[in-house]
Amino acid sequence: MYQNEVQIRVRYAETDQMGYVYYGNFAAYYEVARTEAFRSLGINYKEMEKEGVMMPVLEMRTKYMRPARYDDLLTIKMMLKNKPSGARILFEYEVYNEARQLLNIGETTMVFVDMQTSRPIAIPDYIINKLESYYH
Amino acid sequence: MYQNEVQIRVRYAETDQMGYVYYGNFAAYYEVARTEAFRSLGINYKEMEKEGVMMPVLEMRTKYMRPARYDDLLTIKMMLKNKPSGARILFEYEVYNEARQLLNIGETTMVFVDMQTSRPIAIPDYIINKLESYYH
Amino acid sequence: MYQNEVQIRVRYAETDQMGYVYYGNFAAYYEVARTEAFRSLGINYKEMEKEGVMMPVLEMRTKYMRPARYDDLLTIKMMLKNKPSGARILFEYEVYNEARQLLNIGETTMVFVDMQTSRPIAIPDYIINKLESYYH
Amino acid sequence: MYQNEVQIRVRYAETDQMGYVYYGNFAAYYEVARTEAFRSLGINYKEMEKEGVMMPVLEMRTKYMRPARYDDLLTIKMMLKNKPSGARILFEYEVYNEARQLLNIGETTMVFVDMQTSRPIAIPDYIINKLESYYH
Repeated sequence: MYQNEVQIRVRYAETDQMGYVYYGNFAAYYEVARTEAFRSLGINYKEMEKEGVMMPVLEMRTKYMRPARYDDLLTIKMMLKNKPSGARILFEYEVYNEARQLLNIGETTMVFVDMQTSRPIAIPDYIINKLESYYH
Repeated sequence: MYQNEVQIRVRYAETDQMGYVYYGNFAAYYEVARTEAFRSLGINYKEMEKEGVMMPVLEMRTKYMRPARYDDLLTIKMMLKNKPSGARILFEYEVYNEARQLLNIGETTMVFVDMQTSRPIAIPDYIINKLESYYH
Repeated sequence: MYQNEVQIRVRYAETDQMGYVYYGNFAAYYEVARTEAFRSLGINYKEMEKEGVMMPVLEMRTKYMRPARYDDLLTIKMMLKNKPSGARILFEYEVYNEARQLLNIGETTMVFVDMQTSRPIAIPDYIINKLESYYH
Repeated sequence: MYQNEVQIRVRYAETDQMGYVYYGNFAAYYEVARTEAFRSLGINYKEMEKEGVMMPVLEMRTKYMRPARYDDLLTIKMMLKNKPSGARILFEYEVYNEARQLLNIGETTMVFVDMQTSRPIAIPDYIINKLESYYH
């Protein structure tokens, strides 16, 4: 499978009065993990949108095991466990703190959409090609 | 079951460059729905925290069916389908636009926690009492 | 002058670990105040953008006098002290809590921009006309 | 004077439907610049709060010259132009894109506060000492 890790430092802005990262903010962490995973594969999500393909979210699931806190240096691990095909792609995530404790797991199902027609389309070939070698 | 509805006007701040409400922002909409549902029952979440009980999120699931857009007047319907017991409580949500199209469904599982011990505790009696009449 | 007030309930999402509304979140409160002030004048900002005119921010100033807190029901007062002319418009804001204590004052300078040319344009006539009667 | 630079990659979450970084999000970028500038001086803001001193914002000013966009790799330059003294500290910021175009300038005035008394206090000596060598 393909996997990649990024590090994110928790901002004060992302905490809430409980002293934890607000639960809605993990969605943005997952987004950073996706963008950087794509970049590490040589895929630029920004360019993909300029070429008329976007990738909105169909579904998100998150489990919160331990709180993330201000100034934590988080590691977001992103996994594409199965080779994508069709119009959908399932990203899975694990969030760790510096002590490598698992704080959070999540998944997002995204769909490739033609921005002209607003219709789902098959995952672009150049993305499949970049991923090919990670699956047997 | 107990259910309640609140209305939220989508802010420009909540949109992204796709022209949709950013997928992570529904977590805050769900939070508003919970807070206002509690208020309509005569429960003040802020006071609950002052009395030493907080309610962090254990799990969230969201399905995005149709995009929400800037200035949409959304209705967030919140349901407690089963009478809560033990330390956990399951909130379910439906998000509608003004044309009463279903945009989004979600659920969050929260846990009651004693802020002194950081341990789960049974849902406070005064909350159970407020909810009692909605379940047979 | 023209002035208008809106009420905003502080969300948990908007607090930080200091227990205050995060300082960057007042920008969104000001935005809500602008949108609703426009609506009360019969101007729909969303429609304005559809007709090709947007109103990005050139400058913002904020003074934080007292903290806003979770669940506070804030009043955001918005004032157009001078009749707008040219391409720019100065909005001034005051934020009060329920005890009518002044928490925050701010101002934003916005510019009307033609979305086709990305150039500043004079404030549209229909906006001037709506405002006319408030200035002598 | 003391100055420091950090890089921030713009997240999708931070854009709005204009395709720009939402104007309120620069406050969080400034916060990151402050935190990292402190860290480069050997000062940990998180520890400072644990020791009972916090640094809320009194005033913010921002000028928006050019839009920041999704996936831009921004450089946030932070400057302490004058040696801090008393209870207040003035941070100035410049935000550049990868082409080193100036997008945004800003400043924040913060105040050191004793978290026990909620009263302003003089800037802690260990911070003055770290900064000493940058001013003559």
